[in-house]
Amino acid sequence: MGSTLARIAIDAMGGDHAPGEIVAGALRAREELGVEILLVGDPQQIEEALAKHTHSHQLEIVPAEGVVAMNEEPLVGLRRKPKASINVAMDLVKRKRADAVVSAGHSGAAMAAALLRLGRLRGIDRPAIGAVFPTLIAGKPVLVLDVGANVDCRPHFLEQFATMGSVYSQYVLGIPEPKVGLLNIGEESCKGNELALRTYQLLQDNPHISFIGNAEGRDVLSGRYDVIVCDGFVGNVLLKFAEAVGEVALNILREELPLGLHGQIGTAILKPNLRRIKQRLDHAEHGGGLLLGVAGICIIGHGSSQAPTVFNAIRLAKEAVDNQVLERIASQYQETPQQSEEKV
Amino acid sequence: MGSTLARIAIDAMGGDHAPGEIVAGALRAREELGVEILLVGDPQQIEEALAKHTHSHQLEIVPAEGVVAMNEEPLVGLRRKPKASINVAMDLVKRKRADAVVSAGHSGAAMAAALLRLGRLRGIDRPAIGAVFPTLIAGKPVLVLDVGANVDCRPHFLEQFATMGSVYSQYVLGIPEPKVGLLNIGEESCKGNELALRTYQLLQDNPHISFIGNAEGRDVLSGRYDVIVCDGFVGNVLLKFAEAVGEVALNILREELPLGLHGQIGTAILKPNLRRIKQRLDHAEHGGGLLLGVAGICIIGHGSSQAPTVFNAIRLAKEAVDNQVLERIASQYQETPQQSEEKV
Repeated sequence: MGSTLARIAIDAMGGDHAPGEIVAGALRAREELGVEILLVGDPQQIEEALAKHTHSHQLEIVPAEGVVAMNEEPLVGLRRKPKASINVAMDLVKRKRADAVVSAGHSGAAMAAALLRLGRLRGIDRPAIGAVFPTLIAGKPVLVLDVGANVDCRPHFLEQFATMGSVYSQYVLGIPEPKVGLLNIGEESCKGNELALRTYQLLQDNPHISFIGNAEGRDVLSGRYDVIVCDGFVGNVLLKFAEAVGEVALNILREELPLGLHGQIGTAILKPNLRRIKQRLDHAEHGGGLLLGVAGICIIGHGSSQAPTVFNAIRLAKEAVDNQVLERIASQYQETPQQSEEKV
Repeated sequence: MGSTLARIAIDAMGGDHAPGEIVAGALRAREELGVEILLVGDPQQIEEALAKHTHSHQLEIVPAEGVVAMNEEPLVGLRRKPKASINVAMDLVKRKRADAVVSAGHSGAAMAAALLRLGRLRGIDRPAIGAVFPTLIAGKPVLVLDVGANVDCRPHFLEQFATMGSVYSQYVLGIPEPKVGLLNIGEESCKGNELALRTYQLLQDNPHISFIGNAEGRDVLSGRYDVIVCDGFVGNVLLKFAEAVGEVALNILREELPLGLHGQIGTAILKPNLRRIKQRLDHAEHGGGLLLGVAGICIIGHGSSQAPTVFNAIRLAKEAVDNQVLERIASQYQETPQQSEEKV
């Protein structure tokens, strides 16, 4: 690819706070991470956003027209707007002008654009979105996938998720032999729905992953698993619930602590402690989900992403590029990354 | 039933802390709730547990032999031990000697025993376990069902869950017109897996419930829904995750609040407020899940239940009895409760 720096194409128009916060996060990433940035979108709006910052780095702008709106059907939006920012960004990867795409826009559209423009990796039937959850053990996150790409799954999809997740955990998160769990409703191999029962066998028989058994809901945050696989319906419900739950705990604190005279005095005294609690309970800015299984690195961020989240998403992309995640997944299937012409 | 007091049969042998904690919770319930208690299990062990307490009330002991172990296949265990405590407890309800069963033992065995001994209510294809989650709004819990009885569901099962949940919410939790949500991965009616898509239509077309749309993972605790329906796989994962997360939040509080001199003083002043916070975050306060759809009131508690949880489970049972939950569900299907001979 010529350059030694990872080149990240950013969908500058995607997300609730685009392009302002997207551009701000990109600028910081350019300065702190040593990546090349290509900002994809409406040149005038991007220039205006850039003008609000003092910056020495030159960021390349790649013109695009329009954006797939949050309430649009992904495929309809992508077809109606072939030059939409997400399409143009994916094309940059396809033409090897960029190594990765980061988008905080319509996640369904990003996934569909990746599938249509880049295709799947050989050996992978369905790409999955992986999300990193913090666990009880500091510095030991768990990768959960799929968190929303595939709402109805077959057992071998989940087996492929386990393979891709293990590669990501090993080469990006630095876990030598990632422990894989199957999200389920009991520890025993006889527990679960049809999907889980059949997946259990596949995972147990797969010599390339380190399957340690079923993980119940209560085990997700235990730190005992490095990778947890599930269908995209359960994973998505869990991810969104987890994000909300920190907020709920904080709200209960805010409501209950200051009640009564004692409450008011005590709360005033405890201010610094409460600030630390807020930091720990607040939903961790982990940047975004990684779309694994397409022939390109794609980070799908939250629609609500602001600059720090965008920065973290770009860092995720850079780490995936630098650690050759695509090549490593492909090598699991003894093939090189390959572009497919198949439809979504 | 003769007596005006609700008569609760307790599986004294079920659970990690049986019979000691079960008996302790039952004694407290007898004193504070005005219920009649029948302790089912090994008379000698129960007598020994009772002997550790000073109590004026006479608790009836109903002898049983053996208990279905946590690692036993439910049906195998139930057949091998016809006089196991859970079987005997269910028979007390069947023979109208008790109004409800509370068990902290093997939940699968409790469910199977209920189905085999009591049968389903007419109109109900699959009983569901409902669990009450606290929400952002104090005093406004949400009932989630199914949290584990049915891992593979059909759309009309979920529709029945919505009906049963609405009845429970209205008559036990006191919500005049319970708002029902369908757990899903997006707000729009076009979102979701096959089950969710087909269930959406059924719920929307049902004139007897107040369906207000899809609830995402982040909406579960919002307080906007009174009843949320889902299949037992997703519900179980969510419930166990939520319980673990509440514990994590409490741990953070316990760790961070008393740090430093200010922390110690503030925490001391805030004691009553902190107690309320613990109550709102702690799952033990909720007692257990209600098995809805069988021809008897059954509360299925946590295996880890200690006395306060057992007490709360008994209170749940009493409330369901006093508010005639069974009769109200049956009347939704214009039938009286009916025992079925069908197999699980």
